[in-house]
Amino acid sequence: MAKITKQSENFSKWYTDVILDTDLADYGPVKGTMVVKPYGFALWTNIRDALNKMIEDTGHENAYFPLFIPKSFLEKEAKHVEGFAKECAVVTHSKLIAEDGSLQVDPASKLEEEIIVRPTSETIIWHMFKKWITSYRDLPLKVNQWANVVRWEMRTRLFLRTSEFLWQEGHTAHATKEEAMQETLDIVEVYRTLFEEYLAIPTIIGRKSNLERFAGADETFSIETMMRDKKALQAGTSHYLGTNFGSAFDVKFQSRDNKELPVYATSWGVSTRMVGALIMVHGDDNGLKIPPKIAPIQVVIIPINAKKEKQQEFSDYINNVSDVLSSIDIRSKVDDSDGSPGFKFNKWELKGVPIRLEVGLKEFESSQITLCRRDNKEKQQLSVDSLKEVQEILVSIQSNMFNDAKSFMEEHTCTAEDFNTFSEILSSDNKFIKAYWDGSDETELKIKDETKATIRCILKDVDDNTKKCIYSNKPAKHLVIFAKAY
Amino acid sequence: MAKITKQSENFSKWYTDVILDTDLADYGPVKGTMVVKPYGFALWTNIRDALNKMIEDTGHENAYFPLFIPKSFLEKEAKHVEGFAKECAVVTHSKLIAEDGSLQVDPASKLEEEIIVRPTSETIIWHMFKKWITSYRDLPLKVNQWANVVRWEMRTRLFLRTSEFLWQEGHTAHATKEEAMQETLDIVEVYRTLFEEYLAIPTIIGRKSNLERFAGADETFSIETMMRDKKALQAGTSHYLGTNFGSAFDVKFQSRDNKELPVYATSWGVSTRMVGALIMVHGDDNGLKIPPKIAPIQVVIIPINAKKEKQQEFSDYINNVSDVLSSIDIRSKVDDSDGSPGFKFNKWELKGVPIRLEVGLKEFESSQITLCRRDNKEKQQLSVDSLKEVQEILVSIQSNMFNDAKSFMEEHTCTAEDFNTFSEILSSDNKFIKAYWDGSDETELKIKDETKATIRCILKDVDDNTKKCIYSNKPAKHLVIFAKAY
Repeated sequence: MAKITKQSENFSKWYTDVILDTDLADYGPVKGTMVVKPYGFALWTNIRDALNKMIEDTGHENAYFPLFIPKSFLEKEAKHVEGFAKECAVVTHSKLIAEDGSLQVDPASKLEEEIIVRPTSETIIWHMFKKWITSYRDLPLKVNQWANVVRWEMRTRLFLRTSEFLWQEGHTAHATKEEAMQETLDIVEVYRTLFEEYLAIPTIIGRKSNLERFAGADETFSIETMMRDKKALQAGTSHYLGTNFGSAFDVKFQSRDNKELPVYATSWGVSTRMVGALIMVHGDDNGLKIPPKIAPIQVVIIPINAKKEKQQEFSDYINNVSDVLSSIDIRSKVDDSDGSPGFKFNKWELKGVPIRLEVGLKEFESSQITLCRRDNKEKQQLSVDSLKEVQEILVSIQSNMFNDAKSFMEEHTCTAEDFNTFSEILSSDNKFIKAYWDGSDETELKIKDETKATIRCILKDVDDNTKKCIYSNKPAKHLVIFAKAY
Repeated sequence: MAKITKQSENFSKWYTDVILDTDLADYGPVKGTMVVKPYGFALWTNIRDALNKMIEDTGHENAYFPLFIPKSFLEKEAKHVEGFAKECAVVTHSKLIAEDGSLQVDPASKLEEEIIVRPTSETIIWHMFKKWITSYRDLPLKVNQWANVVRWEMRTRLFLRTSEFLWQEGHTAHATKEEAMQETLDIVEVYRTLFEEYLAIPTIIGRKSNLERFAGADETFSIETMMRDKKALQAGTSHYLGTNFGSAFDVKFQSRDNKELPVYATSWGVSTRMVGALIMVHGDDNGLKIPPKIAPIQVVIIPINAKKEKQQEFSDYINNVSDVLSSIDIRSKVDDSDGSPGFKFNKWELKGVPIRLEVGLKEFESSQITLCRRDNKEKQQLSVDSLKEVQEILVSIQSNMFNDAKSFMEEHTCTAEDFNTFSEILSSDNKFIKAYWDGSDETELKIKDETKATIRCILKDVDDNTKKCIYSNKPAKHLVIFAKAY
């Protein structure tokens, strides 16, 4: 295990080091692809299971739609085309020919219509909804899928930007605009719960500006989060799609009173990108810090008995600790591998396990255990009879991590009344800056050009004339959050 | 709900009718693709969860490898090339250009090396194993992934043969041949348990012949099952890959005594094809029959109270039944939708729900419930105080379904001592036929040509000279099972 780069020295290198050294993921052979290794996949599975339960509990059903989308489908929704055409994997042939051990694409297998590997599934799902929705009885229709999607990427960043990534995408159809908008907002709350209560990541939530909106949406709500380098990461989105896809795929329904009416849509998703957020919100110079609720291993037990004294009783003692933890539903692991205690301490610290239990001969003889918290490094002695306290300590770590991240975000969020202040703030450090904006694409683009900061989301609308845009000085339409973003 | 085709009249049409009418799945827009609808996906999820637990309990870890495989990887293992090159989705470009609302493939985005959408992941996984395996400490390495794979298909059969399907693929690396072979066989037993104890499907398990072996395997073991049309379906396979992939990807390890040694491999998988097997093993003229252990809905409750008498008490009574079932971990659903009782009985029978509870006013007033089993149509009265019995009845349905399928398979399995008898049997009906075979590809191909039957698996080897091949009359090498197969 090489020493990882310090977070303060090179945030970007620190990020990659942490991922590779903790066995979360590795690079795949095709540019832009990623292998999620077992430790990373166990973490993803815990996040997925927590979210899946909330999705099901709010009346959505899982389904699975095909990976392959006919090229013509992407043409059907005008804005959707623009948004996704640039970065598509295009399947053009269906056969290879082996010649002298080398493989050539069989020209005879050229497809009549090219196929796109899904970058997102609105088009194919609304093609199916056309078959499934005829009457008000078929609405609302609320489906979700866990799937892989592909968006061509030249600059890979593990978990943050990869050609293929894993995500869930929810797609719903509704009889009214109000119901669809409510669904869009309900999902925002589901995501907020996931981020705040499970990932221990504080969120800022608001509408996207015109330029940052999803291609094909009338309104996009995003979950914005602050990383330790004070840059923003958009960690999830929920879209109100209006009748854009319903119209593009000619989906209508017969109402109770026999009218033919349009169908309103939403779509929403979060991806393996969340793992990237998790790393960058909580990690430090010593590596990962994983919130207890989603940690693959919540407690690692390190037996320390180099001379192998009283081996049987000592080992029984360790097993008993492990069994007690299992019995109270704590995910624990005994590390009885070769290697010095110091090596193991570093390893599991790097891997972000919330609690380390050190058990040496002295502890064994006094029926004690030394508990060390990953979040604040505090150590305490615990009697083996009070292992139940570990549960409370895990709860305390979870809330401590959230509070710490929240204070950090608040400390680095400020307001700017004029563009000079705004530029100065950003030239010395990254920040979240609350400021007034006139609502125009032009202003947004100019600010981005000059400062690299973009509008993360709209916090509230302004309808009096007292507020002025920090850039144009025109009457402001919105209070927004600006930040440099991933 | 249209009346489905009778199984006895047209098995193939019956199969498709059942799938479409019970909302298990639907056809996707690209030829060969399938949409798994919520009811089908819930069934698949239950199968997946049961198997996933067994895979994890036997020391395997889930991970995720990329969808995209460089074309050159497929060339590396000679037999693997032949097996998979014919049916590949080939990605050749990474960009589309929008012109006047229509999309064209951007010629400038042509890839230097074409990419194959994974038909199976041996090559990409062994490419990664090369990075991960250096020492005996890294072995065994046992990973599994749940993923979508693509094999181009012209003749679609929902769940049985689709261009894209969902599966798990396990891939393991071992220090010795013996350990790898043991892993191959251990997985066969995991699959047997899944099929027999969860899907209630009896199995015949054996080695594949040379011609039917996985492309790149030294030995393939398959799980063969008998459908109600007495044709065979290969429902799962476990491969001993020897050092084929280890050599192709140059993976070696340093032993304890510092020798550089080859690495032995296995791979194994089951797919959404299992859902097809489930339908064809248990279904009847009235539709699906789903074994209780994996049924999305184990018990459907049909309230019958057209005149809405004593509405509140009646509804409380129904809710109580539902609550009691939930409290003893039974997955139940109350169907209080519009529609006649007869319509609902048919609907849930078609959907294969193991138990229907009918609750009318008479039942309500006498604290009774009428229970109707899907497997044998038996009805019985149950006191509302003895709802716990439903658990035992579910167990009884599960074993009854298995026994029924097992008797059916045994009834339609016979032996043939000579080729005349063999041909006659198959000309009048489908059967599983046990017969002796000389072990040559030539004989196998001729028998297939003349009868359409293939060797499903090798039951045992013969090493004396007393047995003769039914076709060539040469000394037999194996006792095998022949059948027409999907």
